[in-house]
Amino acid sequence: MRGIGKEFMEKTKFQYAERSDQALGYPQPPLQSGSEDEGKVFDLPEPESIKVDSIDIREAIENRTSTRSYRMEAISPEELSYLLWCTQGVKQVKSSVTFRTVPSAGARHALETYVLVNNVEGLEKGLYHFLPIEHKLVRIQTGEHIAEDIKTACLDQPFVLNSAVTFIWTAVPYRMQWRYGERGYRYLHLDAGHVCQNLYLAAQSVSCGVCAIAAFLDDNINILLQIDGEKEFTIYIATVGKIT
Amino acid sequence: MRGIGKEFMEKTKFQYAERSDQALGYPQPPLQSGSEDEGKVFDLPEPESIKVDSIDIREAIENRTSTRSYRMEAISPEELSYLLWCTQGVKQVKSSVTFRTVPSAGARHALETYVLVNNVEGLEKGLYHFLPIEHKLVRIQTGEHIAEDIKTACLDQPFVLNSAVTFIWTAVPYRMQWRYGERGYRYLHLDAGHVCQNLYLAAQSVSCGVCAIAAFLDDNINILLQIDGEKEFTIYIATVGKIT
Repeated sequence: MRGIGKEFMEKTKFQYAERSDQALGYPQPPLQSGSEDEGKVFDLPEPESIKVDSIDIREAIENRTSTRSYRMEAISPEELSYLLWCTQGVKQVKSSVTFRTVPSAGARHALETYVLVNNVEGLEKGLYHFLPIEHKLVRIQTGEHIAEDIKTACLDQPFVLNSAVTFIWTAVPYRMQWRYGERGYRYLHLDAGHVCQNLYLAAQSVSCGVCAIAAFLDDNINILLQIDGEKEFTIYIATVGKIT
Repeated sequence: MRGIGKEFMEKTKFQYAERSDQALGYPQPPLQSGSEDEGKVFDLPEPESIKVDSIDIREAIENRTSTRSYRMEAISPEELSYLLWCTQGVKQVKSSVTFRTVPSAGARHALETYVLVNNVEGLEKGLYHFLPIEHKLVRIQTGEHIAEDIKTACLDQPFVLNSAVTFIWTAVPYRMQWRYGERGYRYLHLDAGHVCQNLYLAAQSVSCGVCAIAAFLDDNINILLQIDGEKEFTIYIATVGKIT
Protein backbone atom coordinates (compact mmCIF):
# COMPACT_ATOMS: atom_id res chain seq x y z
CA MET A 1 0.00 0.00 0.00
CA ARG A 2 1.50 3.27 -1.17
CA GLY A 3 2.46 5.67 1.59
CA ILE A 4 2.77 3.18 4.45
CA GLY A 5 6.57 3.51 4.62
CA LYS A 6 6.41 7.27 4.90
CA GLU A 7 3.57 7.03 7.42
CA PHE A 8 5.52 4.55 9.51
CA MET A 9 8.58 6.82 9.59
CA GLU A 10 6.41 9.81 10.51
CA LYS A 11 4.49 8.09 13.29
CA THR A 12 7.57 6.50 14.82
CA LYS A 13 9.39 9.78 15.24
CA PHE A 14 10.88 10.01 18.69
CA GLN A 15 8.75 13.04 19.53
CA TYR A 16 5.59 10.92 19.31
CA ALA A 17 6.90 8.12 21.54
CA GLU A 18 4.17 6.83 23.78
CA ARG A 19 4.89 5.95 27.39
CA SER A 20 6.44 2.51 27.23
CA ASP A 21 5.20 -0.58 28.99
CA GLN A 22 8.47 -0.55 30.89
CA ALA A 23 7.74 2.97 32.16
CA LEU A 24 4.22 1.83 33.07
CA GLY A 25 5.67 -0.92 35.24
CA TYR A 26 4.85 -3.97 33.14
CA PRO A 27 7.25 -6.89 33.59
CA GLN A 28 10.04 -7.45 31.08
CA PRO A 29 9.26 -10.25 28.61
CA PRO A 30 11.52 -13.34 28.54
CA LEU A 31 15.02 -13.00 27.04
CA GLN A 32 14.42 -15.71 24.45
CA SER A 33 11.41 -17.55 23.08
CA GLY A 34 12.71 -21.05 22.60
CA SER A 35 13.20 -23.61 25.33
CA GLU A 36 14.53 -27.11 25.68
CA ASP A 37 10.94 -28.32 26.08
CA GLU A 38 10.14 -27.37 22.49
CA GLY A 39 11.57 -30.54 20.97
CA LYS A 40 14.60 -32.77 20.78
CA VAL A 41 17.66 -30.82 21.93
CA PHE A 42 21.06 -30.92 20.22
CA ASP A 43 24.19 -29.74 21.94
CA LEU A 44 26.51 -27.58 19.87
CA PRO A 45 30.28 -27.63 20.29
CA GLU A 46 31.40 -24.94 22.73
CA PRO A 47 32.51 -21.84 20.80
CA GLU A 48 35.73 -21.50 22.85
CA SER A 49 36.88 -24.93 21.68
CA ILE A 50 36.38 -24.18 17.98
CA LYS A 51 39.34 -23.25 15.79
CA VAL A 52 38.68 -21.23 12.66
CA ASP A 53 40.89 -19.54 10.08
CA SER A 54 42.27 -16.18 11.06
CA ILE A 55 41.09 -13.44 8.70
CA ASP A 56 41.84 -9.79 9.07
CA ILE A 57 38.79 -7.62 9.65
CA ARG A 58 39.71 -5.22 6.86
CA GLU A 59 40.23 -8.07 4.42
CA ALA A 60 36.90 -9.61 5.45
CA ILE A 61 35.10 -6.30 4.89
CA GLU A 62 36.79 -5.62 1.56
CA ASN A 63 36.22 -9.13 0.21
CA ARG A 64 32.64 -9.47 1.33
CA THR A 65 30.31 -10.32 -1.50
CA SER A 66 27.00 -12.13 -1.85
CA THR A 67 27.53 -15.73 -2.96
CA ARG A 68 24.64 -17.68 -4.43
CA SER A 69 26.54 -20.77 -5.54
CA TYR A 70 27.98 -23.27 -3.09
CA ARG A 71 29.96 -26.49 -3.15
CA MET A 72 27.90 -29.57 -2.31
CA GLU A 73 29.88 -30.07 0.86
CA ALA A 74 28.73 -30.39 4.44
CA ILE A 75 29.70 -27.90 7.12
CA SER A 76 30.72 -29.30 10.47
CA PRO A 77 28.77 -28.85 13.71
CA GLU A 78 31.73 -26.73 14.87
CA GLU A 79 31.33 -24.39 11.90
CA LEU A 80 27.59 -24.09 12.48
CA SER A 81 28.18 -23.45 16.17
CA TYR A 82 30.75 -20.75 15.34
CA LEU A 83 28.38 -18.96 12.97
CA LEU A 84 25.56 -19.04 15.52
CA TRP A 85 27.98 -17.72 18.12
CA CYS A 86 29.13 -14.83 15.92
CA THR A 87 25.58 -13.81 15.08
CA GLN A 88 23.69 -14.21 18.37
CA GLY A 89 26.16 -15.64 20.88
CA VAL A 90 25.46 -14.73 24.50
CA LYS A 91 28.65 -13.55 26.19
CA GLN A 92 27.01 -12.70 29.50
CA VAL A 93 23.61 -12.73 31.22
CA LYS A 94 23.42 -9.98 33.82
CA SER A 95 20.36 -8.69 35.72
CA SER A 96 17.93 -10.04 33.13
CA VAL A 97 19.88 -8.62 30.20
CA THR A 98 21.97 -10.55 27.69
CA PHE A 99 25.18 -9.20 26.23
CA ARG A 100 25.85 -10.73 22.86
CA THR A 101 28.35 -10.71 20.03
CA VAL A 102 26.08 -8.22 18.22
CA PRO A 103 24.74 -4.87 19.38
CA SER A 104 21.04 -4.36 20.00
CA ALA A 105 19.14 -1.22 20.98
CA GLY A 106 19.16 -1.13 24.78
CA ALA A 107 20.43 -4.74 24.76
CA ARG A 108 16.83 -5.78 24.03
CA HIS A 109 17.92 -8.57 21.65
CA ALA A 110 14.48 -9.20 20.23
CA LEU A 111 15.60 -11.59 17.49
CA GLU A 112 15.38 -15.38 17.31
CA THR A 113 17.40 -17.61 14.99
CA TYR A 114 16.08 -20.63 13.13
CA VAL A 115 18.29 -22.73 10.89
CA LEU A 116 17.26 -24.77 7.91
CA VAL A 117 19.81 -27.58 7.94
CA ASN A 118 20.49 -29.04 4.51
CA ASN A 119 24.00 -30.33 4.87
CA VAL A 120 25.56 -30.34 8.33
CA GLU A 121 27.61 -33.36 9.46
CA GLY A 122 25.67 -35.50 11.90
CA LEU A 123 22.50 -33.39 11.90
CA GLU A 124 19.33 -34.58 10.24
CA LYS A 125 17.95 -32.31 7.51
CA GLY A 126 15.24 -30.04 8.82
CA LEU A 127 14.39 -26.93 10.72
CA TYR A 128 15.91 -26.10 14.11
CA HIS A 129 15.53 -23.26 16.59
CA PHE A 130 18.65 -21.85 18.25
CA LEU A 131 18.66 -21.28 21.99
CA PRO A 132 21.29 -18.57 22.44
CA ILE A 133 21.51 -18.70 26.24
CA GLU A 134 22.02 -22.49 26.31
CA HIS A 135 23.88 -22.42 22.95
CA LYS A 136 21.87 -25.42 21.75
CA LEU A 137 19.55 -26.30 18.91
CA VAL A 138 16.00 -27.57 19.30
CA ARG A 139 14.45 -29.58 16.51
CA ILE A 140 11.28 -28.06 15.08
CA GLN A 141 10.73 -30.36 12.15
CA THR A 142 12.85 -32.74 10.12
CA GLY A 143 12.43 -34.16 6.66
CA GLU A 144 13.28 -33.40 3.06
CA HIS A 145 10.26 -31.28 2.13
CA ILE A 146 10.84 -28.40 4.54
CA ALA A 147 13.78 -27.11 2.47
CA GLU A 148 11.66 -27.16 -0.67
CA ASP A 149 8.87 -25.30 1.16
CA ILE A 150 11.26 -22.65 2.43
CA LYS A 151 12.75 -22.25 -1.02
CA THR A 152 9.23 -21.70 -2.38
CA ALA A 153 8.52 -19.11 0.34
CA CYS A 154 11.77 -17.39 -0.70
CA LEU A 155 10.29 -16.85 -4.17
CA ASP A 156 11.97 -19.99 -5.49
CA GLN A 157 15.51 -18.70 -5.13
CA PRO A 158 17.35 -21.97 -5.83
CA PHE A 159 20.38 -21.35 -3.63
CA VAL A 160 18.21 -21.95 -0.54
CA LEU A 161 18.25 -25.63 -1.51
CA ASN A 162 21.96 -25.67 -2.33
CA SER A 163 22.98 -23.95 0.90
CA ALA A 164 24.47 -26.04 3.69
CA VAL A 165 22.35 -24.05 6.14
CA THR A 166 19.96 -21.16 5.79
CA PHE A 167 19.63 -18.76 8.72
CA ILE A 168 16.11 -17.42 9.28
CA TRP A 169 15.89 -14.58 11.78
CA THR A 170 12.60 -13.69 13.37
CA ALA A 171 11.69 -10.75 15.56
CA VAL A 172 9.66 -10.87 18.76
CA PRO A 173 8.55 -7.24 18.68
CA TYR A 174 7.28 -6.96 22.24
CA ARG A 175 10.77 -7.59 23.58
CA MET A 176 11.75 -4.30 21.89
CA GLN A 177 8.42 -2.47 22.21
CA TRP A 178 8.32 -3.02 25.94
CA ARG A 179 10.97 -0.31 26.19
CA TYR A 180 10.78 1.59 22.92
CA GLY A 181 7.17 1.39 21.77
CA GLU A 182 6.39 1.56 18.08
CA ARG A 183 9.77 3.06 17.20
CA GLY A 184 11.15 -0.30 18.25
CA TYR A 185 10.02 -1.72 14.88
CA ARG A 186 12.76 0.39 13.30
CA TYR A 187 15.29 -1.00 15.75
CA LEU A 188 14.34 -4.62 15.03
CA HIS A 189 15.44 -4.13 11.43
CA LEU A 190 18.62 -2.27 12.38
CA ASP A 191 19.47 -5.17 14.68
CA ALA A 192 18.81 -7.77 11.98
CA GLY A 193 21.24 -5.85 9.78
CA HIS A 194 23.96 -6.03 12.46
CA VAL A 195 23.45 -9.77 12.75
CA CYS A 196 23.51 -10.50 9.03
CA GLN A 197 26.65 -8.44 8.54
CA ASN A 198 28.41 -10.51 11.19
CA LEU A 199 27.33 -13.66 9.36
CA TYR A 200 28.79 -12.32 6.10
CA LEU A 201 32.10 -11.56 7.79
CA ALA A 202 32.43 -14.56 10.11
CA ALA A 203 31.53 -17.01 7.33
CA GLN A 204 34.77 -16.13 5.58
CA SER A 205 36.80 -17.71 8.37
CA VAL A 206 35.12 -21.06 7.72
CA SER A 207 35.39 -20.85 3.90
CA CYS A 208 31.70 -20.17 3.48
CA GLY A 209 29.82 -17.72 1.33
CA VAL A 210 26.59 -15.97 2.28
CA CYS A 211 23.63 -14.41 0.51
CA ALA A 212 21.08 -12.31 2.37
CA ILE A 213 17.43 -12.63 1.38
CA ALA A 214 14.89 -9.96 2.27
CA ALA A 215 12.32 -10.91 -0.40
CA PHE A 216 10.17 -13.70 0.98
CA LEU A 217 6.48 -14.49 1.29
CA ASP A 218 5.98 -13.49 4.90
CA ASP A 219 2.89 -15.55 5.70
CA ASN A 220 4.28 -18.68 4.09
CA ILE A 221 7.59 -18.58 5.89
CA ASN A 222 5.93 -17.77 9.22
CA ILE A 223 3.62 -20.76 8.88
CA LEU A 224 6.60 -23.02 8.17
CA LEU A 225 8.32 -21.69 11.29
CA GLN A 226 5.11 -22.23 13.27
CA ILE A 227 5.02 -18.60 14.37
CA ASP A 228 1.98 -16.31 14.23
CA GLY A 229 3.46 -13.47 12.12
CA GLU A 230 2.55 -10.76 14.65
CA LYS A 231 3.97 -11.66 18.05
CA GLU A 232 6.84 -13.18 16.12
CA PHE A 233 7.60 -12.67 12.44
CA THR A 234 10.37 -13.44 9.99
CA ILE A 235 12.59 -10.41 9.46
CA TYR A 236 15.62 -11.56 7.44
CA ILE A 237 17.11 -14.69 5.88
CA ALA A 238 20.60 -15.66 4.72
CA THR A 239 21.97 -18.74 3.00
CA VAL A 240 25.39 -20.17 3.85
CA GLY A 241 27.51 -22.74 2.05
CA LYS A 242 31.04 -23.82 1.31
CA ILE A 243 32.81 -21.97 -1.45
CA THR A 244 36.09 -22.78 -3.12
CA MET B 1 0.89 5.88 17.69
CA ARG B 2 0.03 2.40 18.88
CA GLY B 3 -0.29 -0.20 16.15
CA ILE B 4 1.70 1.54 13.44
CA GLY B 5 4.59 -0.95 13.65
CA LYS B 6 2.28 -3.92 13.23
CA GLU B 7 0.42 -2.15 10.43
CA PHE B 8 3.66 -1.35 8.64
CA MET B 9 4.79 -4.98 8.80
CA GLU B 10 1.39 -6.17 7.57
CA LYS B 11 1.14 -3.75 4.65
CA THR B 12 4.72 -4.31 3.52
CA LYS B 13 4.31 -8.05 3.19
CA PHE B 14 5.74 -9.23 -0.09
CA GLN B 15 2.33 -10.47 -1.26
CA TYR B 16 1.01 -6.89 -1.31
CA ALA B 17 3.94 -5.46 -3.27
CA GLU B 18 2.74 -2.88 -5.75
CA ARG B 19 4.21 -2.74 -9.24
CA SER B 20 7.46 -0.86 -8.79
CA ASP B 21 8.45 2.32 -10.56
CA GLN B 22 11.28 0.32 -12.10
CA ALA B 23 8.77 -2.14 -13.55
CA LEU B 24 6.70 0.81 -14.78
CA GLY B 25 9.71 2.10 -16.70
CA TYR B 26 10.61 5.13 -14.58
CA PRO B 27 14.30 6.06 -14.69
CA GLN B 28 16.60 4.98 -11.88
CA PRO B 29 17.36 7.78 -9.42
CA PRO B 30 20.99 8.96 -9.00
CA LEU B 31 23.44 6.69 -7.16
CA GLN B 32 24.26 9.33 -4.57
CA SER B 33 22.77 12.62 -3.45
CA GLY B 34 25.82 14.74 -2.71
CA SER B 35 28.00 16.41 -5.29
CA GLU B 36 31.17 18.46 -5.38
CA ASP B 37 29.04 21.53 -6.10
CA GLU B 38 27.46 21.34 -2.66
CA GLY B 39 30.29 23.14 -0.89
CA LYS B 40 34.01 23.17 -0.32
CA VAL B 41 35.47 19.76 -1.19
CA PHE B 42 38.06 17.91 0.88
CA ASP B 43 40.08 15.06 -0.53
CA LEU B 44 40.46 12.02 1.69
CA PRO B 45 43.56 9.84 1.69
CA GLU B 46 43.14 6.91 -0.72
CA PRO B 47 42.00 3.81 1.21
CA GLU B 48 44.62 1.58 -0.50
CA SER B 49 47.42 3.72 0.92
CA ILE B 50 46.18 3.55 4.51
CA LYS B 51 47.80 1.15 6.99
CA VAL B 52 45.74 0.00 9.95
CA ASP B 53 46.25 -2.58 12.68
CA SER B 54 45.50 -6.14 11.74
CA ILE B 55 42.69 -7.58 13.85
CA ASP B 56 41.18 -11.00 13.43
CA ILE B 57 37.52 -10.98 12.47
CA ARG B 58 36.55 -13.37 15.26
CA GLU B 59 38.39 -11.29 17.84
CA ALA B 60 36.73 -8.12 16.52
CA ILE B 61 33.28 -9.72 16.77
CA GLU B 62 33.89 -11.16 20.23
CA ASN B 63 35.35 -7.93 21.63
CA ARG B 64 32.78 -5.59 20.16
CA THR B 65 31.11 -3.44 22.75
CA SER B 66 29.47 -0.01 22.81
CA THR B 67 31.90 2.61 24.08
CA ARG B 68 30.56 5.94 25.31
CA SER B 69 33.77 7.37 26.71
CA TYR B 70 36.66 8.48 24.51
CA ARG B 71 40.11 9.92 24.90
CA MET B 72 40.36 13.60 23.94
CA GLU B 73 42.58 12.72 21.03
CA ALA B 74 42.23 13.53 17.35
CA ILE B 75 41.83 10.85 14.72
CA SER B 76 43.85 11.27 11.54
CA PRO B 77 42.36 11.93 8.10
CA GLU B 78 43.61 8.44 7.19
CA GLU B 79 41.61 6.89 10.02
CA LEU B 80 38.48 8.81 9.04
CA SER B 81 38.97 7.81 5.41
CA TYR B 82 39.38 4.17 6.40
CA LEU B 83 36.16 4.18 8.45
CA LEU B 84 34.22 5.81 5.62
CA TRP B 85 35.67 3.23 3.24
CA CYS B 86 34.67 0.30 5.46
CA THR B 87 31.13 1.57 5.89
CA GLN B 88 30.19 2.88 2.43
CA GLY B 89 33.29 2.53 0.24
CA VAL B 90 32.57 2.06 -3.47
CA LYS B 91 34.62 -0.83 -4.84
CA GLN B 92 33.16 -0.65 -8.35
CA VAL B 93 30.63 1.31 -10.41
CA LYS B 94 29.15 -0.90 -13.11
CA SER B 95 26.14 -0.21 -15.37
CA SER B 96 24.69 2.38 -13.01
CA VAL B 97 25.11 0.19 -9.93
CA THR B 98 27.66 0.62 -7.15
CA PHE B 99 29.29 -2.31 -5.40
CA ARG B 100 30.36 -1.34 -1.93
CA THR B 101 32.06 -2.73 1.14
CA VAL B 102 28.59 -3.34 2.61
CA PRO B 103 25.67 -5.33 1.22
CA SER B 104 22.46 -3.59 0.18
CA ALA B 105 19.20 -5.05 -1.10
CA GLY B 106 19.55 -5.26 -4.87
CA ALA B 107 22.70 -3.10 -4.59
CA ARG B 108 20.34 -0.11 -4.24
CA HIS B 109 22.59 1.59 -1.64
CA ALA B 110 20.04 4.16 -0.57
CA LEU B 111 22.05 5.54 2.34
CA GLU B 112 24.08 8.74 2.63
CA THR B 113 26.77 9.45 5.22
CA TYR B 114 27.28 12.73 7.05
CA VAL B 115 30.04 13.22 9.59
CA LEU B 116 30.10 15.58 12.50
CA VAL B 117 33.80 16.36 12.84
CA ASN B 118 34.82 17.26 16.38
CA ASN B 119 38.44 16.23 16.43
CA VAL B 120 40.08 15.21 13.16
CA GLU B 121 43.60 16.43 12.35
CA GLY B 122 43.55 19.22 9.79
CA LEU B 123 39.78 19.34 9.38
CA GLU B 124 37.75 22.22 10.73
CA LYS B 125 35.02 21.29 13.22
CA GLY B 126 31.67 21.00 11.55
CA LEU B 127 29.34 18.90 9.47
CA TYR B 128 30.45 17.23 6.24
CA HIS B 129 28.74 15.07 3.63
CA PHE B 130 30.60 12.04 2.28
CA LEU B 131 30.67 11.44 -1.48
CA PRO B 132 31.24 7.68 -1.72
CA ILE B 133 31.91 7.52 -5.47
CA GLU B 134 34.54 10.29 -5.36
CA HIS B 135 35.63 9.28 -1.82
CA LYS B 136 35.65 12.91 -0.74
CA LEU B 137 34.00 15.09 1.86
CA VAL B 138 31.94 18.19 1.14
CA ARG B 139 31.58 20.82 3.82
CA ILE B 140 27.98 21.48 4.83
CA GLN B 141 28.57 23.78 7.78
CA THR B 142 31.46 24.53 10.10
CA GLY B 143 31.58 26.04 13.54
CA GLU B 144 31.43 25.06 17.17
CA HIS B 145 27.67 25.15 17.71
CA ILE B 146 26.71 22.40 15.28
CA ALA B 147 28.10 19.70 17.60
CA GLU B 148 26.08 21.10 20.50
CA ASP B 149 22.95 21.16 18.32
CA ILE B 150 23.44 17.56 17.21
CA LYS B 151 24.04 16.48 20.81
CA THR B 152 20.74 18.15 21.75
CA ALA B 153 18.96 16.37 18.89
CA CYS B 154 20.45 13.12 20.23
CA LEU B 155 18.57 13.66 23.49
CA ASP B 156 21.62 15.27 25.08
CA GLN B 157 23.75 12.16 25.06
CA PRO B 158 27.06 13.73 26.07
CA PHE B 159 29.37 11.38 24.18
CA VAL B 160 28.30 13.03 20.89
CA LEU B 161 30.38 16.03 21.99
CA ASN B 162 33.29 13.91 23.19
CA SER B 163 33.45 11.82 20.04
CA ALA B 164 36.19 12.54 17.50
CA VAL B 165 33.57 12.07 14.77
CA THR B 166 29.92 11.14 14.75
CA PHE B 167 28.56 9.29 11.73
CA ILE B 168 25.02 10.24 10.75
CA TRP B 169 23.43 7.98 8.16
CA THR B 170 20.44 9.14 6.19
CA ALA B 171 18.21 7.21 3.81
CA VAL B 172 16.99 8.39 0.43
CA PRO B 173 13.96 6.10 0.25
CA TYR B 174 13.17 6.51 -3.43
CA ARG B 175 16.47 4.93 -4.36
CA MET B 176 15.16 1.75 -2.69
CA GLN B 177 11.44 2.21 -3.41
CA TRP B 178 12.09 2.57 -7.13
CA ARG B 179 12.64 -1.18 -7.20
CA TYR B 180 11.04 -2.49 -4.02
CA GLY B 181 8.12 -0.18 -3.26
CA GLU B 182 7.01 0.26 0.34
CA ARG B 183 8.76 -2.90 1.51
CA GLY B 184 11.94 -1.01 0.74
CA TYR B 185 11.52 0.90 4.01
CA ARG B 186 12.31 -2.36 5.81
CA TYR B 187 15.42 -2.80 3.68
CA LEU B 188 16.70 0.71 4.43
CA HIS B 189 16.91 -0.20 8.09
CA LEU B 190 18.48 -3.60 7.44
CA ASP B 191 21.11 -1.83 5.33
CA ALA B 192 21.81 0.75 8.03
CA GLY B 193 22.41 -2.15 10.42
CA HIS B 194 24.98 -3.69 8.05
CA VAL B 195 26.80 -0.37 7.84
CA CYS B 196 26.88 0.32 11.55
CA GLN B 197 28.14 -3.17 12.31
CA ASN B 198 31.06 -2.62 9.94
CA LEU B 199 31.83 0.62 11.75
CA TYR B 200 31.87 -1.21 15.10
CA LEU B 201 34.27 -3.81 13.75
CA ALA B 202 36.53 -1.66 11.59
CA ALA B 203 36.96 0.95 14.33
CA GLN B 204 38.86 -1.61 16.38
CA SER B 205 41.71 -1.62 13.87
CA VAL B 206 42.26 2.11 14.47
CA SER B 207 41.94 1.91 18.29
CA CYS B 208 38.53 3.53 18.28
CA GLY B 209 35.36 2.74 20.14
CA VAL B 210 31.84 3.18 18.78
CA CYS B 211 28.37 3.72 20.18
CA ALA B 212 25.28 3.44 17.98
CA ILE B 213 22.42 5.87 18.60
CA ALA B 214 18.92 5.16 17.35
CA ALA B 215 17.11 7.52 19.74
CA PHE B 216 17.17 11.01 18.25
CA LEU B 217 14.71 13.79 17.56
CA ASP B 218 14.10 13.14 13.88
CA ASP B 219 12.90 16.59 12.84
CA ASN B 220 15.70 18.37 14.70
CA ILE B 221 18.48 16.28 13.26
CA ASN B 222 17.03 16.48 9.74
CA ILE B 223 16.89 20.27 9.93
CA LEU B 224 20.53 20.39 11.04
CA LEU B 225 21.46 18.20 8.08
CA GLN B 226 19.41 20.45 5.78
CA ILE B 227 17.33 17.51 4.55
CA ASP B 228 13.54 17.44 4.29
CA GLY B 229 12.84 14.36 6.45
CA GLU B 230 10.79 12.61 3.75
CA LYS B 231 12.81 12.39 0.55
CA GLU B 232 15.81 12.01 2.83
CA PHE B 233 15.72 11.28 6.55
CA THR B 234 18.15 10.35 9.31
CA ILE B 235 18.09 6.62 9.96
CA TYR B 236 20.99 5.85 12.33
CA ILE B 237 23.86 7.57 14.14
CA ALA B 238 27.11 6.36 15.71
CA THR B 239 29.82 8.11 17.66
CA VAL B 240 33.50 7.22 17.23
CA GLY B 241 36.51 8.15 19.34
CA LYS B 242 39.90 6.96 20.49
CA ILE B 243 39.95 4.53 23.36
CA THR B 244 42.88 3.29 25.38
